Amino acid sequence: MSSISERYPVSCAFCKIAKAYPAESSPVPANPDPELIDPGCYLILSTPQVMAFLDIMPIAPGHILLTTRPHYEKLSDMYAPPKSSDWASEKTATQAKEVSQAIGEWLPIVSRALCAVTGIEDWNVVQNNGERAAQVVPHVHFHLIPRYQEGRREIGGKGKVDYGMLKSWKVFGRGSREDLDEEEAQVMASSLREALKVELGGGKAKL
Amino acid sequence: MSSISERYPVSCAFCKIAKAYPAESSPVPANPDPELIDPGCYLILSTPQVMAFLDIMPIAPGHILLTTRPHYEKLSDMYAPPKSSDWASEKTATQAKEVSQAIGEWLPIVSRALCAVTGIEDWNVVQNNGERAAQVVPHVHFHLIPRYQEGRREIGGKGKVDYGMLKSWKVFGRGSREDLDEEEAQVMASSLREALKVELGGGKAKL
Ligand SMILES: [Zn+2]
Ligand SMILES: [Zn+2]
Repeated sequence: MSSISERYPVSCAFCKIAKAYPAESSPVPANPDPELIDPGCYLILSTPQVMAFLDIMPIAPGHILLTTRPHYEKLSDMYAPPKSSDWASEKTATQAKEVSQAIGEWLPIVSRALCAVTGIEDWNVVQNNGERAAQVVPHVHFHLIPRYQEGRREIGGKGKVDYGMLKSWKVFGRGSREDLDEEEAQVMASSLREALKVELGGGKAKL
Repeated sequence: MSSISERYPVSCAFCKIAKAYPAESSPVPANPDPELIDPGCYLILSTPQVMAFLDIMPIAPGHILLTTRPHYEKLSDMYAPPKSSDWASEKTATQAKEVSQAIGEWLPIVSRALCAVTGIEDWNVVQNNGERAAQVVPHVHFHLIPRYQEGRREIGGKGKVDYGMLKSWKVFGRGSREDLDEEEAQVMASSLREALKVELGGGKAKL
């Protein structure tokens, strides 16, 4: 296996995203093309440690995934005990520490952007490890899932979302999730990137 | 409001724990007395930034909560945008950053200890924000919930756990959760502390 394919296993959907969208100088990508890969990726955050993008099968509008950029299958893979023999180098351990800290640091910031854009005040963060825990893509990712007030129309949406769906809570693999509408996704991702910039102090708050 | 009651709101169950169990020199508390507070607390991790202890109403044996030590209601409260006027000081912002990084850093380590003690390979991490998202204690906490193989008997348990319960997934407030058995909790917490020490390189691996 070459070092590139080790870093980005071809079979991993999120490594495909990592490869297609390298980290830029700013954590919020300027205007990323969703169609660099298939299925399209609506990227809102891209750093050397982490990425965030819209879930392609959202259980609610604004459903975001925050992932590590390097490939770790489970959360437990993001730590190397001191003097562990099955870890290649101290560099790997240092990277795992930086990435895990970055996940902790970005969860609140991405949450704030999500609240600002959707108007929600309630949301769940869910991270699944292993098949029995409903992990689908074997690359560490945190779901950020808005819980809308019943009857509330989402911002920028077409009102076609079934809020009853939220009550039955389908993130654990029960029932179907809706495919992402491309047009809605573009608007949502663009708003989230703008909100992130505001949080980071580099953007303009909307009136 | 005095500075002490501001730091530890009396109405908050997790601030009560933070007050009863101050951070020690080592992240893994030596032999904490569960009965310092009521209901009892089975503490496994205690740092200036974070704490971890057993959920008193576990939905599976080994159900752990990883919380911030300072009081933040929701994940979004763990970040202060630059030049935000409603934050008291830069010190508060620095603390929020340290705490959020610590959450990210400890999630993998506590997960590893959980896997080592229970033998599970699959687990969910769930963090709820707000009433509609089933947040019960208004102080940021991450659930670590083992998903046992069907029919598998948990380590140190009495075999009285209904594994069917795990399939119906009750963390979101549907249905009842079982109260923590004190004797089992003592064994579980002690094993988890030992496993954490091993992960940190300061303990002895069990044969
Ligand atoms: Zn991957
Ligand atoms: Zn509190």
